[in-house]
Amino acid sequence: MVRVGIINVTGYAGAELARLLYAHPEARLTSVSGRSAAGKPLAEVFPHLAAYDLTLGEEIGDVDFAFSALPHAASAEALAPLVRAGVPVVDISADFRLRDPQEYARWYGCEHPAPDLLARAAYGLTELNRDAVRSSRLVANPGCYPESALLALAPAVKEGIVGPDVIIDSKSGVSGAGRTLGLAYHFAEANESVSAYGLAGHRHLPEIVQELTAMWPQAEVPSPPQPKVTFTPHLIPMTRGILSTCYAPLLPGAVQNGEQARELYREFYRGEPFVRVVDSPPASKQVAGSNVCLVHPTVDARTERLVVVSVIDNLVKGAAGQAIQNMNAMLGLNETAGLETPAVYP
Amino acid sequence: MVRVGIINVTGYAGAELARLLYAHPEARLTSVSGRSAAGKPLAEVFPHLAAYDLTLGEEIGDVDFAFSALPHAASAEALAPLVRAGVPVVDISADFRLRDPQEYARWYGCEHPAPDLLARAAYGLTELNRDAVRSSRLVANPGCYPESALLALAPAVKEGIVGPDVIIDSKSGVSGAGRTLGLAYHFAEANESVSAYGLAGHRHLPEIVQELTAMWPQAEVPSPPQPKVTFTPHLIPMTRGILSTCYAPLLPGAVQNGEQARELYREFYRGEPFVRVVDSPPASKQVAGSNVCLVHPTVDARTERLVVVSVIDNLVKGAAGQAIQNMNAMLGLNETAGLETPAVYP
Amino acid sequence: MVRVGIINVTGYAGAELARLLYAHPEARLTSVSGRSAAGKPLAEVFPHLAAYDLTLGEEIGDVDFAFSALPHAASAEALAPLVRAGVPVVDISADFRLRDPQEYARWYGCEHPAPDLLARAAYGLTELNRDAVRSSRLVANPGCYPESALLALAPAVKEGIVGPDVIIDSKSGVSGAGRTLGLAYHFAEANESVSAYGLAGHRHLPEIVQELTAMWPQAEVPSPPQPKVTFTPHLIPMTRGILSTCYAPLLPGAVQNGEQARELYREFYRGEPFVRVVDSPPASKQVAGSNVCLVHPTVDARTERLVVVSVIDNLVKGAAGQAIQNMNAMLGLNETAGLETPAVYP
Amino acid sequence: MVRVGIINVTGYAGAELARLLYAHPEARLTSVSGRSAAGKPLAEVFPHLAAYDLTLGEEIGDVDFAFSALPHAASAEALAPLVRAGVPVVDISADFRLRDPQEYARWYGCEHPAPDLLARAAYGLTELNRDAVRSSRLVANPGCYPESALLALAPAVKEGIVGPDVIIDSKSGVSGAGRTLGLAYHFAEANESVSAYGLAGHRHLPEIVQELTAMWPQAEVPSPPQPKVTFTPHLIPMTRGILSTCYAPLLPGAVQNGEQARELYREFYRGEPFVRVVDSPPASKQVAGSNVCLVHPTVDARTERLVVVSVIDNLVKGAAGQAIQNMNAMLGLNETAGLETPAVYP
Repeated sequence: MVRVGIINVTGYAGAELARLLYAHPEARLTSVSGRSAAGKPLAEVFPHLAAYDLTLGEEIGDVDFAFSALPHAASAEALAPLVRAGVPVVDISADFRLRDPQEYARWYGCEHPAPDLLARAAYGLTELNRDAVRSSRLVANPGCYPESALLALAPAVKEGIVGPDVIIDSKSGVSGAGRTLGLAYHFAEANESVSAYGLAGHRHLPEIVQELTAMWPQAEVPSPPQPKVTFTPHLIPMTRGILSTCYAPLLPGAVQNGEQARELYREFYRGEPFVRVVDSPPASKQVAGSNVCLVHPTVDARTERLVVVSVIDNLVKGAAGQAIQNMNAMLGLNETAGLETPAVYP
Repeated sequence: MVRVGIINVTGYAGAELARLLYAHPEARLTSVSGRSAAGKPLAEVFPHLAAYDLTLGEEIGDVDFAFSALPHAASAEALAPLVRAGVPVVDISADFRLRDPQEYARWYGCEHPAPDLLARAAYGLTELNRDAVRSSRLVANPGCYPESALLALAPAVKEGIVGPDVIIDSKSGVSGAGRTLGLAYHFAEANESVSAYGLAGHRHLPEIVQELTAMWPQAEVPSPPQPKVTFTPHLIPMTRGILSTCYAPLLPGAVQNGEQARELYREFYRGEPFVRVVDSPPASKQVAGSNVCLVHPTVDARTERLVVVSVIDNLVKGAAGQAIQNMNAMLGLNETAGLETPAVYP
Repeated sequence: MVRVGIINVTGYAGAELARLLYAHPEARLTSVSGRSAAGKPLAEVFPHLAAYDLTLGEEIGDVDFAFSALPHAASAEALAPLVRAGVPVVDISADFRLRDPQEYARWYGCEHPAPDLLARAAYGLTELNRDAVRSSRLVANPGCYPESALLALAPAVKEGIVGPDVIIDSKSGVSGAGRTLGLAYHFAEANESVSAYGLAGHRHLPEIVQELTAMWPQAEVPSPPQPKVTFTPHLIPMTRGILSTCYAPLLPGAVQNGEQARELYREFYRGEPFVRVVDSPPASKQVAGSNVCLVHPTVDARTERLVVVSVIDNLVKGAAGQAIQNMNAMLGLNETAGLETPAVYP
Repeated sequence: MVRVGIINVTGYAGAELARLLYAHPEARLTSVSGRSAAGKPLAEVFPHLAAYDLTLGEEIGDVDFAFSALPHAASAEALAPLVRAGVPVVDISADFRLRDPQEYARWYGCEHPAPDLLARAAYGLTELNRDAVRSSRLVANPGCYPESALLALAPAVKEGIVGPDVIIDSKSGVSGAGRTLGLAYHFAEANESVSAYGLAGHRHLPEIVQELTAMWPQAEVPSPPQPKVTFTPHLIPMTRGILSTCYAPLLPGAVQNGEQARELYREFYRGEPFVRVVDSPPASKQVAGSNVCLVHPTVDARTERLVVVSVIDNLVKGAAGQAIQNMNAMLGLNETAGLETPAVYP
């Protein structure tokens, strides 16, 4: 049994890690921390986790594996000593996602707390980066929006069927904003309403651009184009789930119709346990509570565009589930361990 | 491995049985039926169950255990041959809940299809009727409202601390109405609205009265009072969950305050894996997706009333989870098998 | 044109007053205050009120009529000088609802800021107290829960058909909790959940008891019974609306069935523009945005209980609409002025 | 007083027309029809419209103005005799939106019932087509999605600041699907879920393309480009509201930033009572129940794209409110008559 710790279990991602680990056959949650609630039983902070007999500490204790669900900056600070001590970790914060510390400083408004560790970090979108994840001891879990967008776009980009004019229009449930209070997340304000935000540039944009750029087929294009990505997140009145609708121009002769696009996507994701290419537009409810991503590529023949719709549960495949999938890969466990239960529907 | 079949998997209770059985360590779903969708893959009818490689049949095949999620009357008809053949079954419909076929005819508007089997049926509220469930091969799964109300009231009634003037005010999510379309369940009508229904007498009322009557302490009261139960269900704009608020007059000297009431309840439910007595009012979200029932008894000292609040997930503890708990008890398995994952929160 | 001011327009009740006054044919909103937002245009604080060209002040200016939407204690302090200066006011806070300052101190945890004014205050449930409202210059607007419960129970109590064992089970949308942030009102927590609260005694309870007690028919009962009221409020996942389900024992021979009860209620509310007795259970959506209260009394013949369901919009009939109705009555205007638009449905 | 009739009042658009007309100072609803409910009082079909004393007929009676809220094809059939008799009408169906009957047949799957009337029809997006509306007696009310998209894009297209590569990503509440039952609109399915639909081509697409094409500045571009429009509608879990996010490439040197774009938009919509250009991203809740459209244009400088977000209430500005605005324009009334009440918020 792998002894697992969660640093800052008090937010939604931390709680979701604890929920999922409860069913994990080879890992056991043995230590949780959370400063504001240190000293309290986990069952008091989260009644749905009453089956655990754990008390929150100021710090986590001795573990074989650690997840950090701290906010950015605080996360890198807390993880640095563990990484240096050789403890394998997955960081759910943004601290190790951007490879360039300048870019990090630009988007997150502070100096990176541990730039020397950036080179050790693997970007933890397991499906697209499995080898790096397996051999790393510091994995940066993707942001929830990048997770949904990159899984939607990767086959088209890597197979070279689309040009660089990419638009990503994402719709997220409100739990993505976390457990910290705010007027925009006050029930009476968020309910029965939809709004766009981050129009001036959301922090997940550089992450998407970085990963899409790295995907662009180098062989075919001598000077690979810098993708021109517009990303617009929206808040919609539901708790869990992200749907991303991604638009990109089809290169001439690439694919003729949706069936061909789905064929190409199916081939790309063959054998992947958590990504399913579906023949009709998916609903986010179909993946609620599960680590599955449904992807539905279509072709708008009138305009010669690829339109891809993907859905995930932002707290599972977009956070805690992806993190456990990464842990499994890092530790050589079955990648689906602890992540096999179907979605909770309806 | 117990081979399990679900008769009429196409509704929400059937689908929920399939979801929960997926994680069961000692049972495997091997056969599903559903007339309207016979011939279709389960994954097509319910995309969230894509992990199953099953096709719906007109009837279920050869199994070691069967659940019926058919509507009333149809259910007894379909189960009768199985019961007579000795196959252990749990009926999620109402057909074997009322012991009196006259009462059944009065409330369900048709003759009971198999009155000879009524004597064999055990009422499957496992916590209150464990011995009967264990020794029966035909278990009537409780209705979702009775489940929540009886778990809330049983300790008080059995311990003789309340009089017979009982009021049960229940609030249910819309999935309780099933998957069949209706204007009251149309999103634009049900959303942002609350309404009462069944004021002239809901079908779960006789079931509640029957079970409460049987609970009344015979020793203490020479002619035990017939409980006078008013039951009002309400539809509220959420998908899953029932909260029941139960009111009954405290007998003089019974308990002085909420702490004493909770003490008595804790004693009553000691060792029960799925019923937890909590110190603050529970939220239905705390049990979503799980088989847990949270119970919170309080005392209104001004009026000398016991007020008990209970929450369940109507599709789990109120249907499919309770059914699997019953199966486990009937087959001598660990009662919690397949039902251990924490609630999905938030 | 009556020049109207709103003290503390920044909460939901204040904003709703402004919305409704916009359509008032004989009153014009000319002054609004709100300390935290003083100096800001109303259109900035509330974009839906952009049609107003008003700026929030520290205090309201010179007006012919004032509403206070301040929290309790602060409200009485702010209103006292106006009342003493002869300006007619409606107080939406709780400060002038309880006639007994001791009772006020017990439930609100502070000394009453202006006990000398209590004798001048009329309880503003216009339908039940019209004469007092018309002749008062200080009207205490009822709490949202009392509004829904008292309109549901008044005909039965005043006509002497029920005994004093009253249970009120209320379900409220989340806007009733106001605009102040709190974890219980965080979207991800409140959505898809129902919970009870205030079980140890909600502040609206003494208000309900005071008004019900005053209603009890004195002639028929030499020593009129003190009503024994249990009141349980619940939070349900919608923005607007309250449904109250009220239970009371029928006195022998009072009414035989629901039809007779509705007949009696119709007679009681004959001519009232805002209370409608309906023949089927109402949905809160049917009154959203409007000043209407729908009441549906029924008889549970099995238990000889009266069960009454009422619905209101908590921000209109439960706050701002009732307040304007009171203003109209106080100023001798048509009571329906500004309150005639139908509910917004669906 | 203009005597107004509504043909097929039984859907959401019809009911909303009745709600809004109630407050109209110069028009009175005198006749309503609806075949399935003919003979029933309007108050029975829609309890929120109880203030009306009207009974549904098979047909509407003698009126000065008629709205049709029938489905397509049936609408043109019902309106043709009225139009020929000289009665001014607004058609809320799609029948007179597309100028080309071939295009109509292609998208709606039937021959146009009255192609001879097409030339008489004005497209009723009043803000963009006021003169034609004023002089027409047959106005085709826009679809809800085109309404939101065209108001968002018109200033940019007409002022020549964007190229023809247009993407419209729209999010709609469920009332847009009407009152007819369907599994996708069943509460338990639609709640807590988001999905895309119409990916193969939604019927509002040709309407959008037709109107955008007509807008393209002819002077500047000798052969004006055919706009290449991709339109993706999404269903989100709320009752009312549409938010459209529109993307188009900025032409070089057109506008440098969001402020300039908003300046241009403000100039374009100067004096319009129902379109407001706002400085921060609007929420659909800010216009619920009202005829207002909020538009927020921004510039994504990284990619040189214009991104415009607009919100409307799909049943008001997207249907009934726009229809009344058109009636006002056609009859020479004040365009805002009956449409002035602020949004219902929260």
